[in-house]
Amino acid sequence: MTIGREIHNLASELWPICRSITGNGVRQTLKIIKQHLPQLQTFEVPTGTQCFDWTVPKEWNIKDAYVIDPNGKKIIDFKVSNLHVVGYSIPIDQKLPLSELKKHLYTLPDQPNAIPYITSYYSPHWGFCLTHSQFEQLIDGEYHVVIDSELKEGHLTYAELLIPGKSEKEVFLSTYVCHPSLANNELSGPTVTTFLAKWLLSQENLNYSYRIIFIPETIGSLTYLSQHADTMKQRVFAGYNVTCVGDERDYSYIPSRAENTLSDMIARHVLGHIAPNYKTYPFFESGSDERRYCAPGIDLPIASIMRTKYNRYPEYHTSLDDLTLVTPKGLEGGYEAIRKCLEIIEHNEVLKLTVMCEPQLGKRGLYPNLSTKQSNQIVSNMMNFISYCDGSLSTLEIAQKIQVPIWDLYDIIANLKQEGLLIKAN
Amino acid sequence: MTIGREIHNLASELWPICRSITGNGVRQTLKIIKQHLPQLQTFEVPTGTQCFDWTVPKEWNIKDAYVIDPNGKKIIDFKVSNLHVVGYSIPIDQKLPLSELKKHLYTLPDQPNAIPYITSYYSPHWGFCLTHSQFEQLIDGEYHVVIDSELKEGHLTYAELLIPGKSEKEVFLSTYVCHPSLANNELSGPTVTTFLAKWLLSQENLNYSYRIIFIPETIGSLTYLSQHADTMKQRVFAGYNVTCVGDERDYSYIPSRAENTLSDMIARHVLGHIAPNYKTYPFFESGSDERRYCAPGIDLPIASIMRTKYNRYPEYHTSLDDLTLVTPKGLEGGYEAIRKCLEIIEHNEVLKLTVMCEPQLGKRGLYPNLSTKQSNQIVSNMMNFISYCDGSLSTLEIAQKIQVPIWDLYDIIANLKQEGLLIKAN
Amino acid sequence: MTIGREIHNLASELWPICRSITGNGVRQTLKIIKQHLPQLQTFEVPTGTQCFDWTVPKEWNIKDAYVIDPNGKKIIDFKVSNLHVVGYSIPIDQKLPLSELKKHLYTLPDQPNAIPYITSYYSPHWGFCLTHSQFEQLIDGEYHVVIDSELKEGHLTYAELLIPGKSEKEVFLSTYVCHPSLANNELSGPTVTTFLAKWLLSQENLNYSYRIIFIPETIGSLTYLSQHADTMKQRVFAGYNVTCVGDERDYSYIPSRAENTLSDMIARHVLGHIAPNYKTYPFFESGSDERRYCAPGIDLPIASIMRTKYNRYPEYHTSLDDLTLVTPKGLEGGYEAIRKCLEIIEHNEVLKLTVMCEPQLGKRGLYPNLSTKQSNQIVSNMMNFISYCDGSLSTLEIAQKIQVPIWDLYDIIANLKQEGLLIKAN
Repeated sequence: MTIGREIHNLASELWPICRSITGNGVRQTLKIIKQHLPQLQTFEVPTGTQCFDWTVPKEWNIKDAYVIDPNGKKIIDFKVSNLHVVGYSIPIDQKLPLSELKKHLYTLPDQPNAIPYITSYYSPHWGFCLTHSQFEQLIDGEYHVVIDSELKEGHLTYAELLIPGKSEKEVFLSTYVCHPSLANNELSGPTVTTFLAKWLLSQENLNYSYRIIFIPETIGSLTYLSQHADTMKQRVFAGYNVTCVGDERDYSYIPSRAENTLSDMIARHVLGHIAPNYKTYPFFESGSDERRYCAPGIDLPIASIMRTKYNRYPEYHTSLDDLTLVTPKGLEGGYEAIRKCLEIIEHNEVLKLTVMCEPQLGKRGLYPNLSTKQSNQIVSNMMNFISYCDGSLSTLEIAQKIQVPIWDLYDIIANLKQEGLLIKAN
Repeated sequence: MTIGREIHNLASELWPICRSITGNGVRQTLKIIKQHLPQLQTFEVPTGTQCFDWTVPKEWNIKDAYVIDPNGKKIIDFKVSNLHVVGYSIPIDQKLPLSELKKHLYTLPDQPNAIPYITSYYSPHWGFCLTHSQFEQLIDGEYHVVIDSELKEGHLTYAELLIPGKSEKEVFLSTYVCHPSLANNELSGPTVTTFLAKWLLSQENLNYSYRIIFIPETIGSLTYLSQHADTMKQRVFAGYNVTCVGDERDYSYIPSRAENTLSDMIARHVLGHIAPNYKTYPFFESGSDERRYCAPGIDLPIASIMRTKYNRYPEYHTSLDDLTLVTPKGLEGGYEAIRKCLEIIEHNEVLKLTVMCEPQLGKRGLYPNLSTKQSNQIVSNMMNFISYCDGSLSTLEIAQKIQVPIWDLYDIIANLKQEGLLIKAN
Repeated sequence: MTIGREIHNLASELWPICRSITGNGVRQTLKIIKQHLPQLQTFEVPTGTQCFDWTVPKEWNIKDAYVIDPNGKKIIDFKVSNLHVVGYSIPIDQKLPLSELKKHLYTLPDQPNAIPYITSYYSPHWGFCLTHSQFEQLIDGEYHVVIDSELKEGHLTYAELLIPGKSEKEVFLSTYVCHPSLANNELSGPTVTTFLAKWLLSQENLNYSYRIIFIPETIGSLTYLSQHADTMKQRVFAGYNVTCVGDERDYSYIPSRAENTLSDMIARHVLGHIAPNYKTYPFFESGSDERRYCAPGIDLPIASIMRTKYNRYPEYHTSLDDLTLVTPKGLEGGYEAIRKCLEIIEHNEVLKLTVMCEPQLGKRGLYPNLSTKQSNQIVSNMMNFISYCDGSLSTLEIAQKIQVPIWDLYDIIANLKQEGLLIKAN
């Protein structure tokens, strides 16, 4: 089974759960992920906890919700799609005429077959979402609306995994678990992140430590930052927000606010080689948690690598963002792009030559004895790599200079180290 | 009446006056401008005054000039167009054959219906300018030439207006009043500048002071600088040379010599938004007073914003540069571009957020309660603006980063200040 | 006779000699060059001398070499083309069947009429090179192969010329003399360099000193650097590796490793004006001695200006790289490009204006008395040059700013100095 298929399977398992920024949907989701990552730790933060300028809201849970039409037919049913209910809807059980009901109905006239995804976290409200086609067929008369939800003092739930490496310096990955049945803009994130964590756990002797969190978006990152920003500012030197990594269309990149951190250089290097036509968005088009990680006073070096960016595909935040849009191939592409970034972080170092000028590679069997006009890409990469090894540039920077993917240099560098021609510069 | 029409009316009033680098034409011009700007002060600098490497020349005045042809017909007449006489012509009253006269006639063979504009300030000379069409019809015989001019010890005249603001730091505007009846490359400058000064005088509580001068070009700026450069170098932090701001064709920009001063950043920001196809010329194509203001040893941050640049339109320095080429609409465009620059100078500041990370705008009524996929440009600008408010960038720099005109942020910033979310960074 | 023709004549004289990285071919070549440059000094470095990571190899000389086919016909003959023998072939005199012989034959199937150029300096080997057309006609049977060569303890030979100037600071030119009968990728280098040296020797009062070496490629530069790098690092502030400067196709440039040294700025300035479509290759495409001069720990500011770059033309390292490909016109272009660079090095300086603001050029006869709309390129260059003379930019940098070739400024600068308007800034 390909890794893309494995990731897609996990996404399918998580699909039906009704997640929100708090509540049991998040807990169920994290429990399933924990089956893959037993070391994952779950944390509960009480309602009312102050997080910078924000406050942890009440916990929301929902059992059922539906609308019965004048003919007694259940025409909108939470059990068919959890998108049908406006997120954080207050409980209700009421009969009302169509004209009144309409004030609580949400559709997308331009996408008549899509159910929109709507929430109202910070203002008490109730509502239903439905396709515009269905909306247009509603008949006059009295409707019965039921939302069996609960808003109470409770907790905001998130999970964290710390994978220790030789250095206390940390790489940070963040993904969110707060949308109901949405695929690219939800499940691709935590599922790809789960498999990235599994890959990291499978590596021996990691050079760096990895801090990975599964949180509700916005309030979750604010909560986490309000409790961990000080440590993170000392330790985190690179990282990514993982979202929208599951479809097959684009590769996309949003820089960190600082624009030229290590995370950025690595992201551009990887995407430049695996998907030269990838799209770059300006930082101000960020809207997910990377915006909080890079916010004034936080200033972490967090960039985003995506397939098709949130807000930039028609299915975004509708029922059409499902597991046909997100595919094993799409997920594998997203996974592989970020995995390569992590691999570069592990490999990147500053080396210098142990001999003056140019080593004689021929006497070490690394250069052809016969000089002809044909060139050999590996020898050429080796020679080019060496000529920048003056202790001022990292291997990533040299790969960039000589215009080859850094992964083509891993074996070359290993050989040169074995021959004693390269040592760490500092 | 539009402001463009008001400016054009003033230009029409100034049109007939025969200005030169000295003399009564300048005085008459300044007197009319003073009707709009009573605070304007006029200064007289005597002939012979040393100005760096230059000397204030004799004062030139002219009453009449004409050429009578062999048939006794007055064929060239200063009273018809003051361009007919070479500027600074010495007095003459002489009869001479066509062959001799021709040595003193100037035409433009490539523009046969245009009278060229010619001067000889620093070498005694006399001459007439006429259309090439007319020149070709001259008949053989004896001509009578009269120039009733006077060159004498006198003064160079200029005017200055200082509009005080809260800070002693100054913004500098310079424009010239030394060409006879020419419209874009003369009258557009002082008339637009007059109305910019009126706008400044109408503002309450200006943050900065404004130094505005009306001078003869070249020798005037040299004279002014030789007496004020020391003060200006301490106080002037931005400014523009105002010329060629009256036609409807291009918008143009010449950077200061330093290329990236505040004046430059503002000019590019304004033109980039109001006229994205504006032309940028290199500094070395400057030829007006901005060249003196940026000269070695002076080094003021003065850039130029123009409509069609001097030397870059066929009517330049000919009788075709008239008040049909310069229009109310053209003048209003030039006025508005520079006015927006001054407005930015007043608004630009460095702000920082008073809360960590990201403020909760929703609880302050600044963010929609319902989260949908539709975006709201004002909210989006607000969020984007905030995410750069770390105290390191000015509001202009942030506007540039988030790719919106800074004037779209003025209300947003006022609101955020009112909510106590932003304070001055220093 | 044009200088291109003179250079081509010298190349023709050097053409038949069988050069290699050591041996009498190098000595004969240097002897002929010495007829043009009597001050040239020759040095001999013994076999076995350690040069950083390398060792001077045995000296190789060859008298004759041929292959006799089964019919007794001499089908491959060193005396017809010295490319027929693999460079550094060990001596052999042997009869062997075609199948065995083939293991020692080298051809270029894609260029069936070209004899390839092959060497095996550091691994004992013998072989013959021939056209693929000829190879395909070889008949079965016994062949007699003879290589009358000698490998012995001897010397590596190189020559050096130091032309002293007012300053001890040095400009460095390096070219190689180690390929047999090859034209662009060999003879164009030493012949153009010889005439550059002659031009330098003809100049009076050079500002800088010039160190010029004729060496075998790679091992020669390593040898030279291992003995002179310390002095060179103190003195050399600019220089070029001279190779492939003889054909008429491209102009090409490879930056130094540091990319923005004086050598680089000058090379780009010259090529930008004389050949605006010149090709720029990245440093990592360098493969000649400039790679050693710029290597880690050496770090000299050496760039390359070429006509068509080695490895980038089909005739490269084949018998087709001959004196029809390299022409008088091609050589003159290569010579002139580098000569202009040396001339710029001599002229480049930092000047400042002796008067404040803008000098009055008119009173010195440097500016037209009559002001018309026509512009004068020389006056315009002068004005533009002056407006950057604030003592912060070199004349080269100003020429670059005002977009004119620096050689158009030489007379202007001389005039302004004579008028006392410019002095050295430091």
